[in-house]
Amino acid sequence: MQDFIFNISTKILFGKDQLKNLPGEIKNYGNKVLLVYGRNSIKKIGLYDDIIKLFEKSSIEIFELPGIVPNPRIDKVREGVKIAKENDIDFILAVGGGSTIDSAKLIAVAAKIDSDPWDIVIGKENPKDAIPIASILTLAATGSEMNSGSVITNEETGQKLGWGSEYARPKFALINPEYTYSVSVYQTAAGTCDIMSHTMENYFTLNDGAYLEDRFAESILKTCMKYGPIAIKEPNNYEARANLIWANSWAINGLLNAGKFTDWSVHPMEHELSALRDITHGVGLAILTPYWLEYCLDNERSEKIAEFGYNVFDIEKTESTFEDAKKAIESLREFFISLGIPENLQKEGFKKEDLPIMARNCINNRPKPEINGFKNLKEEDILNIYKMAF
Amino acid sequence: MQDFIFNISTKILFGKDQLKNLPGEIKNYGNKVLLVYGRNSIKKIGLYDDIIKLFEKSSIEIFELPGIVPNPRIDKVREGVKIAKENDIDFILAVGGGSTIDSAKLIAVAAKIDSDPWDIVIGKENPKDAIPIASILTLAATGSEMNSGSVITNEETGQKLGWGSEYARPKFALINPEYTYSVSVYQTAAGTCDIMSHTMENYFTLNDGAYLEDRFAESILKTCMKYGPIAIKEPNNYEARANLIWANSWAINGLLNAGKFTDWSVHPMEHELSALRDITHGVGLAILTPYWLEYCLDNERSEKIAEFGYNVFDIEKTESTFEDAKKAIESLREFFISLGIPENLQKEGFKKEDLPIMARNCINNRPKPEINGFKNLKEEDILNIYKMAF
Repeated sequence: MQDFIFNISTKILFGKDQLKNLPGEIKNYGNKVLLVYGRNSIKKIGLYDDIIKLFEKSSIEIFELPGIVPNPRIDKVREGVKIAKENDIDFILAVGGGSTIDSAKLIAVAAKIDSDPWDIVIGKENPKDAIPIASILTLAATGSEMNSGSVITNEETGQKLGWGSEYARPKFALINPEYTYSVSVYQTAAGTCDIMSHTMENYFTLNDGAYLEDRFAESILKTCMKYGPIAIKEPNNYEARANLIWANSWAINGLLNAGKFTDWSVHPMEHELSALRDITHGVGLAILTPYWLEYCLDNERSEKIAEFGYNVFDIEKTESTFEDAKKAIESLREFFISLGIPENLQKEGFKKEDLPIMARNCINNRPKPEINGFKNLKEEDILNIYKMAF
Repeated sequence: MQDFIFNISTKILFGKDQLKNLPGEIKNYGNKVLLVYGRNSIKKIGLYDDIIKLFEKSSIEIFELPGIVPNPRIDKVREGVKIAKENDIDFILAVGGGSTIDSAKLIAVAAKIDSDPWDIVIGKENPKDAIPIASILTLAATGSEMNSGSVITNEETGQKLGWGSEYARPKFALINPEYTYSVSVYQTAAGTCDIMSHTMENYFTLNDGAYLEDRFAESILKTCMKYGPIAIKEPNNYEARANLIWANSWAINGLLNAGKFTDWSVHPMEHELSALRDITHGVGLAILTPYWLEYCLDNERSEKIAEFGYNVFDIEKTESTFEDAKKAIESLREFFISLGIPENLQKEGFKKEDLPIMARNCINNRPKPEINGFKNLKEEDILNIYKMAF
C-alpha cells in the first residue's frame, strides 16, 4: 500500500427529511446565493419551488444560473462567474447532477481570479481561493458532490477536460434519494454504469496490497448490480435509489484509491467520445470498459480480472485463470447490455473515420503521450481499443 | 435506509513517510503542545525521540502527560486538564493507541469548562468548545483517531463509560503502519478482535435496506481475517499492518452505521468486564460475541447471521438457514480461538459471583434499563449471556 493523504470534509445530509436543514447550513457561509441548475427537471419534481420558498422564508437572496447541460460547457461557467463577480455572491448551490456541480466548482474558483475560467481547466492558472459551494443531488452518477474534481467541455476547442482543486471541494451535499425517482430508465442505466466505471478505474491495478480498498470496490460494484436493475423496473423504490446514490458518492471520493497508484484509462478515452458526438458519459464508459479489459488481458493481468469475476460475478474458479478472466469480462458486458447499453460505438452514431481523430485527441489532451493505468496505453493502443469497440 | 448525517473531517496522513508533515499540520493550530502518551512503547520504537527532535527544530513548545494506561482513567485526564489550563495549551497530540486518544479527547473539552471532567462523561455537563487534538497511532484497535467518541474508566465509582462530542473530533491522524510492528502477538490479536467487534456491532441489525454498508462491513471483516493471522506470524509485514490499521479506522468512523439503527450490545457488556477485572477490551469482546450471537439466534435473526456466514466465511448455503447461522457463529468462535483468545470468562479470572454484579452494573450505566440492539436485552438476558460465556 502506497502512502496517501485522505481528506473528505464534505458533510452529507442524507435522507427524506433533510431539506429543512438547508438554510441553516448555507447561513454558515453567507446570504447571497447563486443557484446553478439544469433545465426543467428540478421544477418538474417541485424541488425548485421548495428551495425558493425556504430561501424566501430565511431571507436568503437568490441569483440564478439555469441551463447547465450534460457535458457542461465553459460558456455557461463564464456566465456564472460574471453573475458571481457582479453581485458579490457568498455561496453557490448546485441543484442537479454532476454537470451542475462541476460547473459550480469552476465558477467558485474562477470568480476569485481575473483571467478566463478555461485557464484553470488547462492548468495555466492555479486556484487560490473559492466561493464556498454545496449541492443538492438529483442523479446518482458522477459522485462530484463529495470530491474536488470537475470535467468541463470547451466547444470552441473541442476539448472535454478534467481538473481539480481542494478549494473547489463542496462544503456539504444534501442527498434525498426521492429526488432521483423521476430519473429516466436510460439515465438510471447510464448513471449506474458511471458509478461502476469509477469503481473499476480505481480497482484495476497491478497488485499493490490495497486489499481493503479492493473489497470496498467490490461492495460498490455488487450494490450497483443489485440495485441498478431494480431502480430501472421500480423507479420509486427508495432502497434501490438510496443504495445507488450512496454508492455513487463512495466510488470517487478517495476511499477506493487510497494507497493505490491509479491512472484512469477509460475516462480519458470516453471524454473524446462525448467531446466529439456529445453522447451520454456513462454510456460511453460502459461501451468501452469491456473492450479495454479485453485489450488489457494478458498473463500478468489475468489474475486481477479473474478475481473480479470470482468476487463480483460469483464465477466459479477453474484451472485456467485466463479463461476465468474472459468469463468475468463477458459477464460485465452482459450486465451492461441487460441495462440497455448498446454494445458498440456504431450504434451511437460514430463513424470509422472518427476513431483516429479521437485517439490523437486523447493523447494530445494529456501531459504525457500515454495512459499509465492497468496497462500502459499509447495512441496506437487507444486506437485499437476504439476499433474493437466500433 | 434511515436518514443520517455523515461528517468525517479528520484528515488522514497515511504511510511510511508522513512524520515530516507533523509540525506543519500542528502549526495550523498553535505552538504549545501537550503530548499525551502511555508508558515506554513509543520510546522503545524511537518515535518519542523523533517527535521531540522535530518539535525542537520547529520551535514547538512541548508539555507532557505520560502514563496513560489501557482502559484509561479519569485521574490522568484530570492531570492533563490541569496542565492544559495552567499552560494555555494550544494543541493536544495523543501518541499511542485508543487510550491516549480517548484521554486526549476528554482533556480537550474538559479544559474549556470549570467543573470536573467526569461530569462530561456522565452527561452532567455538555462540551461547548475544545482544544484541537490529533493523534499518531501506534495500535490498530479502537478506531478512536477518526471519530468523536471516547471511553473513560472511573476507578472510584467502578464505571467504564462511553461519551462523545463533535468538539472532540481529531483534526488529523498520522498513521504509519510501521509503528505497529512492535505490537505484541497478544495485543495484535486483541486489536483485530476489537476491529471486528466494532464492525459486527454495526452489521448485525434487522433488515434495514443498508445493503452497501453491510458489504463494506464484510470487507472489513474479511480484511481482519486475512491479515490478523499474518501480522501475528510476521509482525513486520507492512501490507498486513497497513490493511489492519486502515480497517480499524473505517470500522467505527460512521461509514458502517450510516442509515442504520444500531444500539451496540457487546460493548456495554464488555465494559463491565474491563471495569471489574481490567481485562483487555478486545479479548473481552471476542469472548462475548459468539455467545451473544447464539443468544440472539432465532427465526427472525437467523437469515442475517447466515448471510454473515455465506459472505464472510464462505459457508455453503444449505436448506436450513438456522443451521447455516449456527455454522457461522462456530466459524467466528474458531477464528477468535485461532488468534489465541480464551474461550470463556473463567480463563480470564472471572468468578461466578461477578456475573450478577456486572449484569446489574451494565443496566445501571444505561439511560434505559435495556439494550435495544440486534435483539432487545434486559438485565436477565445480559446475565444469561454472561453465564453462557462463563
